[in-house]
Amino acid sequence: MAVVVQNFERADRAIIDRLAACGVATVHEAQGRKGLLASYMHPIYSGARLAASAVTISAPPGDNWMVHVAIEQLRDGDILVLAPTSPCEDGYFGDLLATSALARGCKGLIIDAGVRDVADLTAMHFPVWSKAIFAQGTVKETLGSVNVPVVCAGALINPGDVIIADDDGVCVVRREEAAAVADAAETRVAAEEEKRKRLAAGELGLDIYKMRERLAGKGLKYV
Amino acid sequence: MAVVVQNFERADRAIIDRLAACGVATVHEAQGRKGLLASYMHPIYSGARLAASAVTISAPPGDNWMVHVAIEQLRDGDILVLAPTSPCEDGYFGDLLATSALARGCKGLIIDAGVRDVADLTAMHFPVWSKAIFAQGTVKETLGSVNVPVVCAGALINPGDVIIADDDGVCVVRREEAAAVADAAETRVAAEEEKRKRLAAGELGLDIYKMRERLAGKGLKYV
Amino acid sequence: MAVVVQNFERADRAIIDRLAACGVATVHEAQGRKGLLASYMHPIYSGARLAASAVTISAPPGDNWMVHVAIEQLRDGDILVLAPTSPCEDGYFGDLLATSALARGCKGLIIDAGVRDVADLTAMHFPVWSKAIFAQGTVKETLGSVNVPVVCAGALINPGDVIIADDDGVCVVRREEAAAVADAAETRVAAEEEKRKRLAAGELGLDIYKMRERLAGKGLKYV
Amino acid sequence: MAVVVQNFERADRAIIDRLAACGVATVHEAQGRKGLLASYMHPIYSGARLAASAVTISAPPGDNWMVHVAIEQLRDGDILVLAPTSPCEDGYFGDLLATSALARGCKGLIIDAGVRDVADLTAMHFPVWSKAIFAQGTVKETLGSVNVPVVCAGALINPGDVIIADDDGVCVVRREEAAAVADAAETRVAAEEEKRKRLAAGELGLDIYKMRERLAGKGLKYV
Amino acid sequence: MAVVVQNFERADRAIIDRLAACGVATVHEAQGRKGLLASYMHPIYSGARLAASAVTISAPPGDNWMVHVAIEQLRDGDILVLAPTSPCEDGYFGDLLATSALARGCKGLIIDAGVRDVADLTAMHFPVWSKAIFAQGTVKETLGSVNVPVVCAGALINPGDVIIADDDGVCVVRREEAAAVADAAETRVAAEEEKRKRLAAGELGLDIYKMRERLAGKGLKYV
Amino acid sequence: MAVVVQNFERADRAIIDRLAACGVATVHEAQGRKGLLASYMHPIYSGARLAASAVTISAPPGDNWMVHVAIEQLRDGDILVLAPTSPCEDGYFGDLLATSALARGCKGLIIDAGVRDVADLTAMHFPVWSKAIFAQGTVKETLGSVNVPVVCAGALINPGDVIIADDDGVCVVRREEAAAVADAAETRVAAEEEKRKRLAAGELGLDIYKMRERLAGKGLKYV
Repeated sequence: MAVVVQNFERADRAIIDRLAACGVATVHEAQGRKGLLASYMHPIYSGARLAASAVTISAPPGDNWMVHVAIEQLRDGDILVLAPTSPCEDGYFGDLLATSALARGCKGLIIDAGVRDVADLTAMHFPVWSKAIFAQGTVKETLGSVNVPVVCAGALINPGDVIIADDDGVCVVRREEAAAVADAAETRVAAEEEKRKRLAAGELGLDIYKMRERLAGKGLKYV
Repeated sequence: MAVVVQNFERADRAIIDRLAACGVATVHEAQGRKGLLASYMHPIYSGARLAASAVTISAPPGDNWMVHVAIEQLRDGDILVLAPTSPCEDGYFGDLLATSALARGCKGLIIDAGVRDVADLTAMHFPVWSKAIFAQGTVKETLGSVNVPVVCAGALINPGDVIIADDDGVCVVRREEAAAVADAAETRVAAEEEKRKRLAAGELGLDIYKMRERLAGKGLKYV
Repeated sequence: MAVVVQNFERADRAIIDRLAACGVATVHEAQGRKGLLASYMHPIYSGARLAASAVTISAPPGDNWMVHVAIEQLRDGDILVLAPTSPCEDGYFGDLLATSALARGCKGLIIDAGVRDVADLTAMHFPVWSKAIFAQGTVKETLGSVNVPVVCAGALINPGDVIIADDDGVCVVRREEAAAVADAAETRVAAEEEKRKRLAAGELGLDIYKMRERLAGKGLKYV
Repeated sequence: MAVVVQNFERADRAIIDRLAACGVATVHEAQGRKGLLASYMHPIYSGARLAASAVTISAPPGDNWMVHVAIEQLRDGDILVLAPTSPCEDGYFGDLLATSALARGCKGLIIDAGVRDVADLTAMHFPVWSKAIFAQGTVKETLGSVNVPVVCAGALINPGDVIIADDDGVCVVRREEAAAVADAAETRVAAEEEKRKRLAAGELGLDIYKMRERLAGKGLKYV
Repeated sequence: MAVVVQNFERADRAIIDRLAACGVATVHEAQGRKGLLASYMHPIYSGARLAASAVTISAPPGDNWMVHVAIEQLRDGDILVLAPTSPCEDGYFGDLLATSALARGCKGLIIDAGVRDVADLTAMHFPVWSKAIFAQGTVKETLGSVNVPVVCAGALINPGDVIIADDDGVCVVRREEAAAVADAAETRVAAEEEKRKRLAAGELGLDIYKMRERLAGKGLKYV
Repeated sequence: MAVVVQNFERADRAIIDRLAACGVATVHEAQGRKGLLASYMHPIYSGARLAASAVTISAPPGDNWMVHVAIEQLRDGDILVLAPTSPCEDGYFGDLLATSALARGCKGLIIDAGVRDVADLTAMHFPVWSKAIFAQGTVKETLGSVNVPVVCAGALINPGDVIIADDDGVCVVRREEAAAVADAAETRVAAEEEKRKRLAAGELGLDIYKMRERLAGKGLKYV
């Protein structure tokens, strides 16, 4: 049952870049409020923001052997996504693996487990969103799989799905839906721009969104 | 049962500012070690420090409609305090609401739930202390109340109570006690200043506070 | 049963400094993947990195009296390690105690509980790794012990053991093993340096570590 | 600030008993979905169900002195409600205190901390809803207060408020609202009885509650 | 995007019953150690053990409207599986819904959220595995979907997949793999029976599984 | 570094039995409030109560190979104590291992990880105190050690230490201190018996323990 899937489709790079520009919160809303990973996934440093195509790893608890296997499958612009088969906070990934991944064009790591060497990773500008920062070492004894569907931090991620990540967390967009979601997200960004100006000028959301009547109809009382 | 209370007393601005200068730990001690919100309330960025008058929101889980209602009730120097009626980590608040709140003179947000667009909020210098950073969107379907007493992160907060917040977390001071607490806190700050000098010079707390006899009396043995 | 142990051996300063240079992840690996404190121990600010000799405190929940006692036992280059006898997040330690500890040459604090005044501690460059940031005040009513073995965040720590701490967390090295671990860690650092260069040049770990045959032998399939 | 309030009003016993008969879920709904304590409050054994008038305790972490003080304030039909002033799981209460409380007519304990001797308490039919089962001992060194308002497991509880507790958890009803809530709860119970029969006979909630049109209006699609 | 899928395939009843007889741990092993839901999913009472075909619900946080919709889709022998779209512990399900579901032949509920009326559900022998027991009420305002793939407690579940649940937790088996997994599980049960006899007679696993040589080869030392 | 220690001292059986009779809470108090394992250690069924001599296992995360090794080291009246080297909830232990352990006279299991087949273990009357109930399978690939000191659920446990466990949790007593602790615990039990009678008769702890004067001295006010 341990397999490495070598060929799968990726979304168009231009579409991925458009999604990156919109950010996690907007993309999440634009695709109907789905695809968020759990709120315990934190960036190891602030300010990173990216979108990339997922190379997935299903790994045994405390065993990072498959990371080496996955790195060979990376193409420029991909991101590694690791989900352990049982809950684990061990530090599967550190500066040597990041050096190797960077050399293959990898844009970062999403890991529902631990990461280590975070000072080095920060200095290298290799962004990671993880469940934990933990130096606990791992072994290389048991197989897992690469580029199979995984459930990572509560979200289903297929190889080739688009990962959006920033300081708000991580969101996944299905590869087949990426173009439509990018359109919807950009429409949303444009609409927000005008509202932002009106709100900054002191207009109230109650008026801009015409909420007063509906609030009164539901029974809101001012006292 | 959904109400918006439009008039309530606020503490004197000068008193609020004096409390801000003392910080959370000192104010908490000065009022008899009460009023702290739970330790899971974290600032979205380091270095913010403020005191402000609470405008409270009791909101249904996953529904941020009442935030719009509350923003209209803000006066310059207020802070929003949101408590969900059931535990929730959804992202009730983002950059558009912050833009609107800032335009009304709002000094920040205390939320026993999630917040999003934290990179934008940081750039705007809009401080938030929250239970989670989470992009999960909310709806506008169910009423809540504004400016009623709420239990937020384990602490009772009334509209008009003074909120103190810094990198140590969040503390609430009853409006009626604010002046007395400010006096006590400033007395404490002054007293600490002299002790800090003696400690920095190498004197021991054991001697400054005359603890040796009481320790021996309780039975402490040096071996 | 409340005792203060005044004399215990410390590791050689030169060895401690060599361990500091290697960092938590490397030292942890070099000593056979043991000695890590729990992943919930976080630094209050990024970038600190140190090694120091442990002065241990076993303290009752919510009572920081023994910290004063422990500070007298500090020698230049030591670090305070506090473990409560029952789980607790109270803020045992703040800027006054840090001032006093610094005056005694203390290099920082490891605490399986809370810390406060973190903005001040950061400004003082006094590093702390803690379970929580929490302003909750403590009392001085009940005795504990100083320089006895403690279990701190899941790890056994004896007075005089060497504590390594950085952005990855905290690791303890037995005093008697410190020299051998320093040797092993430095060997590891040297070996990694060459691997880092090869990985940066695009060579794969699969080839450098000769993993392909063993992976095939375990049954990994490429599809 | 350490006080014992000796006189406060209690709700009518008949009303309290009517609330007990309705149970936590029904009472919570009947008073507008408020008053629940956090979901981490578990009964130490299954099958207990009660309503009682609250005698509240605000206790320091790890110090159960005030429990002795509170027991003197108990009247027949009361329940003890303990909230620590800082999060704590220590075992404040065991079989000796339960023996004493039972002798005063106490109906049980709600504690946002730990309890011990649970096998004995179960044998005595003394029900407890707690955050933890933990044998950790406590001291008697620091004062707290009895019969002041407390925030317990996220809910504000005043002395004399009515506590409802069963296998679903714990709910508080304000003393002044107890009669009206009992009426509303009984109305709800009666209404549910008829619905239960129709549902048991195979009728669908979709039809009983006439939901189909509203679902279609919101856009639900059957495929 | 809110849909109700009315037709999907179910596994053969005979196969489902064979899986029930094997239990969660055995089935999980037999399918290659996959399919377990998170360890926080607990039964509301001990001793239940079942297998059933999943009818899935994707529900908004704090909104149980879709449960009514899903009940109409139940066939005899199905089980409800509810996953909220954002983390939530509210009590989506109680005795009225259980009455309705039972009338449709429903065998139980798997819910990554809260449940209430657990005393009644226990008396009705309606088993539930849930994240929480919590009476918190829900609304009926926002649509979700029925019989779409959901991620429930970390596991992907499709409508028609087979759910196995007992005191050890919950496991999902893909519908298409159910027959093969049942074969493998029964083989495993048979093999365990003989080993159980030998172990009960005092033989050691070290000898039965011929582990001694491999342990020595890896370097285990007896001292 | 993987070793099996075959010879170590055990406490006298008669002393162990005396400790069992006193229970966890009393023993913990009698030895100065130390030795408790974390409150997350729960029994898989109610009513078990025992004391036994520890056979310890230090196991890699997700690898139960060493359990087989440890079973050979069991003597009649021992208990297994397993601590993973990294946090883990996997189900290291089930009915086959329990059958084998029972055949060697084992009295139960303390495990800072998961256990499975709990319905079978309950039927066999094989008591387990664990961090989790979880069916997740483990591998047999990596060595650990048997009968070395371990930190289990926050407590240091040496081989031969006495484990006391009941519905309140788990406590460890050092082998060398077992006789003295048994004496102290029995003294405590006897003293409690008389107090229990007085409390049952309605006397107050305030009077029995003569607390009124000290409370007044600390400043308690009755209002």
